[in-house]
Amino acid sequence: MIDCGEGAQIRMRQMNVKTARLGHIFISHLHGDHVFGLIGLISSFGMLNRTADLHIHAAAALETILKPQLSFFCEELPFQIIFHVINPSVYELIFEDRTVSVYTIPLKHRVPACGFLFEEKPRDRAILRDMIDFYNVPVWRIPKIKQGEDFITAEGDVIANSVFTKAPEPPKRYAYCSDTAYSEKILPFIEGVDCLYHEATFMNDEKVRASKTLHSTAEQAATIACKARVGKLIIGHYSARYNDKNGLLHEAKSVFENTFLAEDMKSYDI
Amino acid sequence: MIDCGEGAQIRMRQMNVKTARLGHIFISHLHGDHVFGLIGLISSFGMLNRTADLHIHAAAALETILKPQLSFFCEELPFQIIFHVINPSVYELIFEDRTVSVYTIPLKHRVPACGFLFEEKPRDRAILRDMIDFYNVPVWRIPKIKQGEDFITAEGDVIANSVFTKAPEPPKRYAYCSDTAYSEKILPFIEGVDCLYHEATFMNDEKVRASKTLHSTAEQAATIACKARVGKLIIGHYSARYNDKNGLLHEAKSVFENTFLAEDMKSYDI
Repeated sequence: MIDCGEGAQIRMRQMNVKTARLGHIFISHLHGDHVFGLIGLISSFGMLNRTADLHIHAAAALETILKPQLSFFCEELPFQIIFHVINPSVYELIFEDRTVSVYTIPLKHRVPACGFLFEEKPRDRAILRDMIDFYNVPVWRIPKIKQGEDFITAEGDVIANSVFTKAPEPPKRYAYCSDTAYSEKILPFIEGVDCLYHEATFMNDEKVRASKTLHSTAEQAATIACKARVGKLIIGHYSARYNDKNGLLHEAKSVFENTFLAEDMKSYDI
Repeated sequence: MIDCGEGAQIRMRQMNVKTARLGHIFISHLHGDHVFGLIGLISSFGMLNRTADLHIHAAAALETILKPQLSFFCEELPFQIIFHVINPSVYELIFEDRTVSVYTIPLKHRVPACGFLFEEKPRDRAILRDMIDFYNVPVWRIPKIKQGEDFITAEGDVIANSVFTKAPEPPKRYAYCSDTAYSEKILPFIEGVDCLYHEATFMNDEKVRASKTLHSTAEQAATIACKARVGKLIIGHYSARYNDKNGLLHEAKSVFENTFLAEDMKSYDI
């Protein structure tokens, strides 16, 4: 989970998100709209008798802020909360498991802030079931074949790995950048990602205001997408002044065609 | 405003509640589902440049919990927050203005908790416009006539006040009681109120669980309504297990017919 504004747990329930599978929360920066939902989420996990550890990756001050609330409202939680301090001013690996690596992306905002890059690890080669059956490959050989090994039949014939497998889907990369002013310094970190989420708080006629509040315009978000040659751009974090988001979308699309509006409760393919 | 759970400000926006008119928040007890929305609400008021004081009436610990969050997330708020400590274990007047008095109602819960009684003050008599015009009563006399004074014409005739006015609507009384176990001790405080909100977390088949967690069943809420001879009962605070609330409603109605289900975003006449 990335950031946790007020009401996040309510939306998760509405969308039937399986919260038991949520192990790590990454907090980009300590403004209320990115953290006020944490205490309610944690409190509800307690009532649901969650037992799995919950890891929170955030700037150090978050623990100081949350701890007294946890002691008061959530005593005797049946699970551990593990705080991991991140340094938002550097690009570095902050988490990895079997399938994914997560890196911080330093952003430019009024308080220390970072985005996150999620990078899938290369997958095993994809098995062609028919050929496995045809050559009677025993089950215990399959993991090795997925990793690219050839197969030697009982008769001693070597069958090339490419007979049994095809190249896997290339690993996907997703970058989340909010909140931030326009900053080309992020380009090397997000170069060529499949999907970029970039904030677009304002339209370009509010460029001065964007720069003053260290936010971006839709045109600026799209310019970053274009320069980083990303596959797809999702914009969001719109100022409340825009009832109709289509102006933002059109502005971004005029620079980077493959742009989508972030909408509440909508899923996007990466 | 009574209590402020997570997402309260979101619902208020959805319902176009004029938050500028919100001056006092009364917090029944310090469980998360009654307070987690406060920090977000206050933070948004700051961004909306509210200037009017905001009064929060709650147990003393709330200030201790909120203060560090306010300093961190809401520095330089353009308005004052004034905390008023309430003692949830006694029935006492905690607020009054020109039109209403508010009293605490001691409840029986796992932490110190109180309900609130809102009592309108008697209104002035209602003016009968036609008769005011007929006797050419000057405008400056009207406030006195509203208060029951007779009118003396230029000719010295005394016209009885009842010619110009009729009795006002009787003052309304509304009692809010959540969270609480069944407790007849509250009866003297809520006797004859026009409308009672009483929690009904469970149905009667979970009576043991209700008693253990210090909550009430729908039947118990209705019994209180019946014994206090209230005008109307609204039940709420349902356990998440009840997807269909009609069981709760029917159970309550079998004891007290004039019962209604509290529903999100619905308004009720008192």
